[in-house]
Amino acid sequence: MDDAITYRLLLEYDGTHFYGWQIQAGRRTVQGELEKALKPLMGESVRVTAAGRTDAGVHALGQVAHFRSLKPRPVGVILSALNGTLPLDVRVLEASMAPLGFHARYSAKWRRYRYRFLHRVSALDRNRAWFPPFDVDWDLAVRESSALLGLHDFTAFSKTGGDSDNPMCDIQAVSWNRDDSGLQFDLRADRFLRHMVRSIVGTLIDVGRGRFEAGTVKKLLESKEREGSGVTAPPQGLYLVEVGY
Amino acid sequence: MDDAITYRLLLEYDGTHFYGWQIQAGRRTVQGELEKALKPLMGESVRVTAAGRTDAGVHALGQVAHFRSLKPRPVGVILSALNGTLPLDVRVLEASMAPLGFHARYSAKWRRYRYRFLHRVSALDRNRAWFPPFDVDWDLAVRESSALLGLHDFTAFSKTGGDSDNPMCDIQAVSWNRDDSGLQFDLRADRFLRHMVRSIVGTLIDVGRGRFEAGTVKKLLESKEREGSGVTAPPQGLYLVEVGY
Repeated sequence: MDDAITYRLLLEYDGTHFYGWQIQAGRRTVQGELEKALKPLMGESVRVTAAGRTDAGVHALGQVAHFRSLKPRPVGVILSALNGTLPLDVRVLEASMAPLGFHARYSAKWRRYRYRFLHRVSALDRNRAWFPPFDVDWDLAVRESSALLGLHDFTAFSKTGGDSDNPMCDIQAVSWNRDDSGLQFDLRADRFLRHMVRSIVGTLIDVGRGRFEAGTVKKLLESKEREGSGVTAPPQGLYLVEVGY
Repeated sequence: MDDAITYRLLLEYDGTHFYGWQIQAGRRTVQGELEKALKPLMGESVRVTAAGRTDAGVHALGQVAHFRSLKPRPVGVILSALNGTLPLDVRVLEASMAPLGFHARYSAKWRRYRYRFLHRVSALDRNRAWFPPFDVDWDLAVRESSALLGLHDFTAFSKTGGDSDNPMCDIQAVSWNRDDSGLQFDLRADRFLRHMVRSIVGTLIDVGRGRFEAGTVKKLLESKEREGSGVTAPPQGLYLVEVGY
């Protein structure tokens, strides 16, 4: 594929009715829907690769993906044809030609994830955020999160079965924002391990509700043990917001 | 029912999978789900009345409803039992005992509706807002909306089949707000006719896209004719936000 063109897509999706990004036989996945929509358009089967393989129920505001093909197609045609064919819960926000050697996953320098918390039950946001059914001291949770910053071994916040042996992640930014409905927790890192954000979120909530003492995040990072972290927060609060190159 | 207690409910719902508020045989409606959930709790069939009978696909952030019963039940029990039984796309935010003579619809002094517009296609907001597929000059649409203020005959913005012969509505407030995803248009009035907000929104957009000239809203209000208003905007952008008593 030396003469292949690399096409880059910026994607938004509602993860509620997907079994995550990665293609699986007999299951509705984002990668599966994209490859199905691209086949007639490109006149061949293509393989689509994403920056981050989100789990079932996890949303994306700015997932980046690429595919390669020898067939030249105007990117405006790709954009409108995909949005005409794809189901409405996945939208292509941009289509472009990528520089030589671009790889959605390996070229990415950082990813930003967001976790949305609600202050109360909500019918409209039930699949878009999490209302923790506990009394949470949010100041404690926010303070605890500062221990995440920097380069650490995140084994304690990972799940077995990820496809990398490297547990080191560099957390570049941690931020919290309040909106009408609740709180948003943003985390930017060079890379993330499997289930890492949801495991971090569950642990912060366990500190905020008094199940774990303050300083638990730091201890867990130093322990490098999978046992001992909090519950894994549910997927509907998690968003892949942006990927940096 | 002289000794009946009037119970008042504050409700949030996602209108996407409901055929609107009003009970209809064989269809999933908000009123139907509430009455079904209340029957075992109250030990009798009750009739639930809402401040505003929203259409299919229309959402509510603060719908108010009431029902009467001779059975005394602690309101905290009603709140938690209903939220335990109801489907997750309708939530009871508050339950209380209402003053004698309270009627969710007839006691209401004003209602506030919101219409959410998107600036671009969105997978996550596809059932929560409308992306008008036209080039819209929003300044024109915003300016046009000021003609709505005050007491007018809204026949031009109504649909036949409403249950009132009175076409007069007093628009008390018109406001526009911008957020990350687009624009919000809020309208407060003593009362609304059937399809009125969606018909107003469609007409404003038709002015903003140049299909109608500026001044059309004023002319339509004076015409008192159903013909001539714009398209009816789709239901998914509309929210019943608040009811005032």
